Amino acid sequence: METGSGGPLSGLRVLELGHFIAGPFCTRILGDLGADIIKIEPPSGDPVRQWGEQVGGHSLWFSAHGRNKRSVTLNLKHKDALPLLLRLVGQCDALVENHRPGQIGKFGLTPEALEAARPGLVVAHVSGYGQNGPDRDRAAFGVIGEAIGGIRYLTNHAPGTTDLPPVRVGVSIGDSLAGLYAAIGILAAVWKRDGIAGDRRGRTVDVALSEAVLSMMEGTLPEYGALGIVRQPAGARINTAAPTSAYPTADGKWLLIAANSDPLFARLTAAMGQPDLAADPRFAGNRLRVRHAAELDDIIGAWTKRASAAELERWLTEADVPCTEVYTAAEIARDEQFRARGMVRDVADPLFGTVLHPGVVPHIADDPGGVRWPGPPIGAHTEEVLSGLLGLSGPEIASLRQEGVL
Amino acid sequence: METGSGGPLSGLRVLELGHFIAGPFCTRILGDLGADIIKIEPPSGDPVRQWGEQVGGHSLWFSAHGRNKRSVTLNLKHKDALPLLLRLVGQCDALVENHRPGQIGKFGLTPEALEAARPGLVVAHVSGYGQNGPDRDRAAFGVIGEAIGGIRYLTNHAPGTTDLPPVRVGVSIGDSLAGLYAAIGILAAVWKRDGIAGDRRGRTVDVALSEAVLSMMEGTLPEYGALGIVRQPAGARINTAAPTSAYPTADGKWLLIAANSDPLFARLTAAMGQPDLAADPRFAGNRLRVRHAAELDDIIGAWTKRASAAELERWLTEADVPCTEVYTAAEIARDEQFRARGMVRDVADPLFGTVLHPGVVPHIADDPGGVRWPGPPIGAHTEEVLSGLLGLSGPEIASLRQEGVL
Repeated sequence: METGSGGPLSGLRVLELGHFIAGPFCTRILGDLGADIIKIEPPSGDPVRQWGEQVGGHSLWFSAHGRNKRSVTLNLKHKDALPLLLRLVGQCDALVENHRPGQIGKFGLTPEALEAARPGLVVAHVSGYGQNGPDRDRAAFGVIGEAIGGIRYLTNHAPGTTDLPPVRVGVSIGDSLAGLYAAIGILAAVWKRDGIAGDRRGRTVDVALSEAVLSMMEGTLPEYGALGIVRQPAGARINTAAPTSAYPTADGKWLLIAANSDPLFARLTAAMGQPDLAADPRFAGNRLRVRHAAELDDIIGAWTKRASAAELERWLTEADVPCTEVYTAAEIARDEQFRARGMVRDVADPLFGTVLHPGVVPHIADDPGGVRWPGPPIGAHTEEVLSGLLGLSGPEIASLRQEGVL
Repeated sequence: METGSGGPLSGLRVLELGHFIAGPFCTRILGDLGADIIKIEPPSGDPVRQWGEQVGGHSLWFSAHGRNKRSVTLNLKHKDALPLLLRLVGQCDALVENHRPGQIGKFGLTPEALEAARPGLVVAHVSGYGQNGPDRDRAAFGVIGEAIGGIRYLTNHAPGTTDLPPVRVGVSIGDSLAGLYAAIGILAAVWKRDGIAGDRRGRTVDVALSEAVLSMMEGTLPEYGALGIVRQPAGARINTAAPTSAYPTADGKWLLIAANSDPLFARLTAAMGQPDLAADPRFAGNRLRVRHAAELDDIIGAWTKRASAAELERWLTEADVPCTEVYTAAEIARDEQFRARGMVRDVADPLFGTVLHPGVVPHIADDPGGVRWPGPPIGAHTEEVLSGLLGLSGPEIASLRQEGVL
């Protein structure tokens, strides 16, 4: 088991009433930086444990998604669960949940009960649309939040290029972004509470998936509001710079080239053996290159199709033109830079032997946190937490288990 | 000018030596939550001010990107700039920069000088590849970090669907993610430094664009490491759930439908007037629906093409099937939920009159931060900061300006 240094969040304890992605991703990030995460799961486990590839009934994704967390089972539908849960709250700095708005209140976790259990508790709610407003009760699907936040429309080929629908960002970006914003909200609130000039009071953080996405939309809203311009998708390109795209290679891969300044473009055309292109009036300066991006990309693509990705990357790197093969999992796993910085690492996992994990982001050299353990089996830490944090005896825990509370 | 409450980060002062997106996005998020952001710009301004649509020579995007920041000009190439900069550091809690690795050291901002100027300073570096390792000096283009982190490969139609290249996520997702992780690192470090049991020391946060992206890749690495499975793109769909996609409408829009459970699917087929589909053996259960997703999407798409997006959304919402029109800027701007929560708001901007801004994420109801002012003109706060924070007199500032330091 790898042991990091403590990490900057050592000493912070967070209760997770999360499931699926958004809430648990928030706590993965906090746990990576050293926070003690207590993940409450129903006895059947977080359903995300069924997602993705399984080995022996165990989810590989969960090895990373659940890492550094202490799993405690609690059947929230049992009448004896609430007092235990509130006692756990009493031992925590913050709580993260991503049930439907109002749901945890129905379990008895009202704002008043939480504040009484732990004065100054920071509570973060993650939901599809937020905790209030006319749409708060709508079902919260990540893809819907992404469509409402605006990223789906823009992640598509340019209008008129194809009849295929706009592409989903390849991962659950809405959920993950909401998790990051929840982490930011929690940390801002605990700093304000605990700091030297802190006010010692709690705050409630309310993150909507749709809003986490909207927050990333650059000039989309200001430009629409002032000029009525509806931003359009640009496919593999960028609307304001050329050439920059992914180009096909002879070995069936994609090479990303970003040569959208005059010096870079001159170096690219020289490496292509077509230096005249740099003087071609269609491509003189970024503005004209953007206007003729389709023609330019055809020329570059015809060249890249004649060599392998490895050859092309070697030639262009020698010519100092920014480029890279478009990485699949295979290239990520063997990337020297990722390995050198511990960002791709082998983690011992009793369920699988060894599992490849992404490292800790951000990297804090003198206090890096780490992967203390991989995603644990359901309830692996129930005894440890109930006895260690709440002082319950073995027989008391056995009795709770027998009654179906755990 | 809108005035929020203080926000949880009121009392935190952050010096930004940022340009373009990643560093400034970090400080936008911190400033939204109340931090005092001092943005150091060269006398010519952050080049991001030239990006996107301009009105009267001013960037609309910057109205949001630069909001809540105090802009101070400083010519870092002038020999008299460093002492001033270090005096400013002395008044700050944290510093964010996104120059090339090592660059700010060449200006004289070495780790030793920074710690001497402000013991316990938290320093966040954002770069393409990170502050060390074999690739640290490579040029940092966002699209390249996205390709290396793995998101570009997965944001594409399924293999064999089209020859078009993988799509760029519609915004600068790598830069923005790096900014969010930098914010998390800074807040974790100031909590550890300033908290009740804080250690009163600074930390160095090191965020790479490529790593910020990699951190979001779900089970991609664990599944490759254990099983050799190279995760593949799924276009508009999700590899593990169906139906969920964007479907064309009669009025040329896209409707997002997420009906990937048996009850939702039954409600969808009933709303379509084709309830027999729910009993069709090809579509019995999620696993079979995923296997026959292309056929299923053709059927659904043939239905959606016969009505407008507004009609479809009304029918499906009545049937309690999660759906939404895929929002462009126009739909975002008029969304009632966004408006109700202040997530789309009109901000008075002396440069433009009124500008539409995204709101503050996360939403903290009892201490919400806010938009105190929009992105300011270059150097708008130079006098205010140099006199207010450093105690310089009017003649001293005038002299610095005359010498070209400001």
